[in-house]
Amino acid sequence: MNKIIKEVQESLTNLKRVKPLVHCITNYVTVNDCANVILSIGGSPAMAEAIEEVEEMATQAQALVLNIGTIANEVVDSMVKAGKAANKAGVPVVFDPVGVGATNYRKESTFRLLKEVKFSVIRGNMAEIKVLCGMEANSKGVDSVEDVKEDAAKDIAKKLAGKLNTVVAITGVIDYISDGERVITIRNGNEMLTRVTGTGCMTTALIGAYLGGGSSPLSCAVAGVSTMGIVGEVAFENLKKNGGSGSFRVSLIDGIYNLKKADFKERGKINEEDWL
Amino acid sequence: MNKIIKEVQESLTNLKRVKPLVHCITNYVTVNDCANVILSIGGSPAMAEAIEEVEEMATQAQALVLNIGTIANEVVDSMVKAGKAANKAGVPVVFDPVGVGATNYRKESTFRLLKEVKFSVIRGNMAEIKVLCGMEANSKGVDSVEDVKEDAAKDIAKKLAGKLNTVVAITGVIDYISDGERVITIRNGNEMLTRVTGTGCMTTALIGAYLGGGSSPLSCAVAGVSTMGIVGEVAFENLKKNGGSGSFRVSLIDGIYNLKKADFKERGKINEEDWL
Amino acid sequence: MNKIIKEVQESLTNLKRVKPLVHCITNYVTVNDCANVILSIGGSPAMAEAIEEVEEMATQAQALVLNIGTIANEVVDSMVKAGKAANKAGVPVVFDPVGVGATNYRKESTFRLLKEVKFSVIRGNMAEIKVLCGMEANSKGVDSVEDVKEDAAKDIAKKLAGKLNTVVAITGVIDYISDGERVITIRNGNEMLTRVTGTGCMTTALIGAYLGGGSSPLSCAVAGVSTMGIVGEVAFENLKKNGGSGSFRVSLIDGIYNLKKADFKERGKINEEDWL
Repeated sequence: MNKIIKEVQESLTNLKRVKPLVHCITNYVTVNDCANVILSIGGSPAMAEAIEEVEEMATQAQALVLNIGTIANEVVDSMVKAGKAANKAGVPVVFDPVGVGATNYRKESTFRLLKEVKFSVIRGNMAEIKVLCGMEANSKGVDSVEDVKEDAAKDIAKKLAGKLNTVVAITGVIDYISDGERVITIRNGNEMLTRVTGTGCMTTALIGAYLGGGSSPLSCAVAGVSTMGIVGEVAFENLKKNGGSGSFRVSLIDGIYNLKKADFKERGKINEEDWL
Repeated sequence: MNKIIKEVQESLTNLKRVKPLVHCITNYVTVNDCANVILSIGGSPAMAEAIEEVEEMATQAQALVLNIGTIANEVVDSMVKAGKAANKAGVPVVFDPVGVGATNYRKESTFRLLKEVKFSVIRGNMAEIKVLCGMEANSKGVDSVEDVKEDAAKDIAKKLAGKLNTVVAITGVIDYISDGERVITIRNGNEMLTRVTGTGCMTTALIGAYLGGGSSPLSCAVAGVSTMGIVGEVAFENLKKNGGSGSFRVSLIDGIYNLKKADFKERGKINEEDWL
Repeated sequence: MNKIIKEVQESLTNLKRVKPLVHCITNYVTVNDCANVILSIGGSPAMAEAIEEVEEMATQAQALVLNIGTIANEVVDSMVKAGKAANKAGVPVVFDPVGVGATNYRKESTFRLLKEVKFSVIRGNMAEIKVLCGMEANSKGVDSVEDVKEDAAKDIAKKLAGKLNTVVAITGVIDYISDGERVITIRNGNEMLTRVTGTGCMTTALIGAYLGGGSSPLSCAVAGVSTMGIVGEVAFENLKKNGGSGSFRVSLIDGIYNLKKADFKERGKINEEDWL
């Protein structure tokens, strides 16, 4: 069994033991799903965004999730305040720059967050991550329409991770995850995951739950991303005649609830890439 | 096969080909369902309401959905800004005046929107549409308790459509849809659709997805409304022993995901009314 | 059959007859579930939080639900305004102090609400209710980690109810409900109810729906709490192989939709406690 799979399995064990409180400041589209995936994997979600309370909530949590999916009004201020408090208290923070390429407002908010908060993990699709790299990116609303070759993708993940001193997780048909040194690829998942809203947000929430267990950011990012990929495959296999994206979504949560350590070994298509 | 059914089938074909980006400024109660129905029918939802970004998002979208279900703070300003930008860019806009008869705030916000934005389609229940006509209306919160005779209902749809130069879709036991010239009735659906929150909002989101495909507003309104009616019937037939509104709701999304052109012909109770 | 079960059954009959409009000012995490449980039990939900419209909505409703799960900006002002209008109009109000122990902001907002609004029912977990009593409480985010002995728990419910002239419902493994005179315990439910977000909020929404039927606050609180406990047991029994918290949640709504008067007698573990 390769090293990264063992690390991922330990991440799940740690999460189940700690039952971490995961503070999320996230969008109102998928917030319910994010709360449910955190509960189904074994954590405790706490959603709170009022500027008056985010410091207090973030510092008592074991992880903080920031997601810009529907930012408006002063919520970015709340995110900065929560993020700084988490940094000070040693609480790991994961960031999801939803649709950062779509509007200037999202871009400015994201660069403000990157400047003021230190993230343990940043998860996005290829278009979002390219924007963070200062590269031209092709997106359609909050979706990526990038087609980047494997070697270039690994390079993007590794370099951004090194530059920002974080773990970068690029999710798509193949997922690329790097801490600036190691590069991991994951080939789990299927197309139906793109037909349910919030599978990206839920993946980020899962990474937050794993981070709350106290494992390394790299293993948590790989664990969160591969969890969604594996349960996506299981849900697809269980799809009944007349089934569609509605019942598929319900099965995703069931799959996360039933996920076992052995699943990473038996179903995970997780590889550590040799890299010069 | 009657003409309108052919037009509706073409609307679905167009939607599947274009895979439109549908920008929604909508309520936080049913926003997740709206995103999921847009994905399940083949579009890409983008929810964004910050005043700083709505113009940019609306102009890159193929359709804009405005829904006043839980308006508060400056979101009506965002709707006006997005609506004007969409109008300027030729992006079709669909409007859902949720519960407009329930409070003066909704009424004022609605009349402001009607004054400042040109809508391709307006969808509401009978009480909501009567308020738009300046008529007395009976509602219970966001639900209609109107009982209007068929000929009068057709007249209301046709006259309001003519007056506002839009397509009016009145949904209920019988649906009435008019562009001011033609009048279409739909007799699909069932009572269980009233036992799930947001089936009205989801219908409006579907109309938005069809509009994003580039078809005529009349055919898009009929397509959206009949889609929900047909999948409501399918979901009811598939309801298991012990099933209820929870599994019915999941089946609605499954049904939209599996909808085929032939369903409109085989299951659609869609009629073009002769009208003097 | 004991007296309280008869009262609970009448509460369901009243709710089904009145089909109450239930105005909710609630959090954006579980708002969709709250709307769906109100619909599934036979009420009409109306979610509205704009300061401009809450008085008008509250006074036309048969019950008002206030839930501080994700309060921010001026929504507490809206709650006060709606609550006062409901009090004046004789509309019963139920309060859910979600996570009141987690932050000072929630505490201050809660005490402001308790001061300005008269509640018919207050529902919370043990940690939340202890905070309302001015006692030290142990919570983890919005969850209680209290372990209070039965007699002490009854005492807390009874005394707070007497002090605030309300019905207090403490939910947990055993539920304790008191109007300051009578004390009811409920032993329905199971651990899976803690693995789905919002089962507490949904219980409060159910109490709101029962209150809208016009029954006594004590019977409505017992009815709402035991409804969730009973359907939780039914959902657990119906759980399929590979089932988890996703399909369990769908079954909860199905169970509420199918709930019958006889279920309280046949499945309810509801007891009126002798108490000096």
